[in-house]
Amino acid sequence: MTPPPPDDRTVPARPDPAWWSGRRVLVTGGLGFIGSTLAHRLVEHGADVVLVDSLVPEYGGNPANVADITDRVRINISDIRDPHSFRHLVQDREVIFNLAGQTSHLDSMRDPFTDLEINCTAQLRLLEVCRAAAPQVKIVYASTRQIYGRPDYLPVDERHLLRPTDVNGINKMAGEWYHILYNNVYGLRACALRLTNTYGPRMRIKDARQTFLGVWVRLAVEGRPFEVWGGEQKRDFTYGEDCADALMLAAERPETDGRIFNLGGDGIVSLTELAELLIAANGGGRFEVHEFPAERKRIDIGDYYADDALFRETVGWRPATPLAAGLAATLAYYRETLPRYL
Amino acid sequence: MTPPPPDDRTVPARPDPAWWSGRRVLVTGGLGFIGSTLAHRLVEHGADVVLVDSLVPEYGGNPANVADITDRVRINISDIRDPHSFRHLVQDREVIFNLAGQTSHLDSMRDPFTDLEINCTAQLRLLEVCRAAAPQVKIVYASTRQIYGRPDYLPVDERHLLRPTDVNGINKMAGEWYHILYNNVYGLRACALRLTNTYGPRMRIKDARQTFLGVWVRLAVEGRPFEVWGGEQKRDFTYGEDCADALMLAAERPETDGRIFNLGGDGIVSLTELAELLIAANGGGRFEVHEFPAERKRIDIGDYYADDALFRETVGWRPATPLAAGLAATLAYYRETLPRYL
Repeated sequence: MTPPPPDDRTVPARPDPAWWSGRRVLVTGGLGFIGSTLAHRLVEHGADVVLVDSLVPEYGGNPANVADITDRVRINISDIRDPHSFRHLVQDREVIFNLAGQTSHLDSMRDPFTDLEINCTAQLRLLEVCRAAAPQVKIVYASTRQIYGRPDYLPVDERHLLRPTDVNGINKMAGEWYHILYNNVYGLRACALRLTNTYGPRMRIKDARQTFLGVWVRLAVEGRPFEVWGGEQKRDFTYGEDCADALMLAAERPETDGRIFNLGGDGIVSLTELAELLIAANGGGRFEVHEFPAERKRIDIGDYYADDALFRETVGWRPATPLAAGLAATLAYYRETLPRYL
Repeated sequence: MTPPPPDDRTVPARPDPAWWSGRRVLVTGGLGFIGSTLAHRLVEHGADVVLVDSLVPEYGGNPANVADITDRVRINISDIRDPHSFRHLVQDREVIFNLAGQTSHLDSMRDPFTDLEINCTAQLRLLEVCRAAAPQVKIVYASTRQIYGRPDYLPVDERHLLRPTDVNGINKMAGEWYHILYNNVYGLRACALRLTNTYGPRMRIKDARQTFLGVWVRLAVEGRPFEVWGGEQKRDFTYGEDCADALMLAAERPETDGRIFNLGGDGIVSLTELAELLIAANGGGRFEVHEFPAERKRIDIGDYYADDALFRETVGWRPATPLAAGLAATLAYYRETLPRYL
């Protein structure tokens, strides 16, 4: 595992409780992994939180993710494809974390039109609704490293060309740019964070629709072996709470308006190294390395890890959770809660 | 006016008549400016040509564009948003020139959803139809320099980041990438040419929906003064027939599969220089320079001209028509045909 660079040893910036206290916030995809992790952080900071989620079973939303804070947030079940509910929901909000999306790469190839509706049409509609009914909001859009495609160089910074390798990546690329455009043309303040692999408590573990790491965690907790496909690919991983803090800092700071930032993680690991770290954090277990299936090979991107110096320099964020500690906390969470996630 | 580079003095490649003779071709947007210019070249080369156009009045299609070749092509009026007609139309085709699109930048801001339907949803649907019913085709997609946004450096090559400045640019960017993706993942052969300003006989001149130059030409032919907004911006211009040849060469050559190329023009001019060239070619006339309106300034991109060395080197194309000669031919065309274009 490659250690983080030495300049990361400074004290990281954290969300400002005074700024967040009473702040009126909406989170789309609020019952999903990152949305609900963010909801916990927002509640800790005293924000007035509305969580919107469609609870489409194949996507990330799970009421179990917010079971412990239901009395401290307002939950509204509606789909980002429905503009009517959103017109009402956004009108008094000051910050919108726009995390709702279709995220499965394979689903986007099987049904490109649903991906288009969610990741393009609905995004554009949300922006139009905000422009009309909530011009005061700051929107933080969760973009993805997936839009870079197979890197030309590593680590990948924001100057790297976008060459998406699936329909999902193309539509997320468009969705990101709608946000930047509405910032630039209409003064609707928005920024985008291109997230890398994110993991932690509340991630989807019942299948690999969100991340392969979810299935690994589940099988490790169940005492069963898990499968590593390939194994040599290098990746970076952001712990959920660190990602939530990054999103909150992006919302707080006006200097992020109209800008796009990579978000990286704590160091770089190969998938085999990650599997070994997981086994160690679990206090035992076993995995098998398999060759990459042909169907995935065509859209595989090889190694990826982010250069997120721009975001670190702009807002002072850096990951607070080492990968080993994050994996241990994740395993501990699912040991307690497993049945609610299957 | 900056002259073209000296390496352009070699004999340019032209479409191969033997390759095109009897070739079964479909042109979407076939009654528009570039589509109909291409249709004339295809007919000259003996191709079997189907032209599809929606004839939506605000868009580029005009039956006058093909009045002289109606007995040598098959014209089918249907909209690219209608998948049913396309399933039938594509099935026996060998080449599809995919030129149908919404091209007005201002329209895309006023009605982003229609732009999305035409430039994203319909493009994806056409690709899905081809994948199912015409896996043998080669598709040449007409992309646009608009997706680069305001250049970081000049001339702009294909390594320049895409930072579209309007909804149209974002959707065209996605549309381009759907084509590249379907090439890479499904083996449906496709390439994209990022066109710069294109002009010539058959361009829309009754308003500025397609290009400001159309209105200039009309007013010059009518003996009226025209307005130049700004005037200092530098641009490059491709003559319609040269663009048609570029599209045909892109279709012929397997080495373009899965690739994206800029298309430039003959030299670089400021808009004021262009206006002077037009007046000279017209044998007289007058123009007024006005300040850029605020509404346009927000989405203005400053100077733009393409580095199209990649395309020139890959297929041997270069523009055959100097700008002055192209303007003269354009004026001559509209002197003959003006009433059919108003």
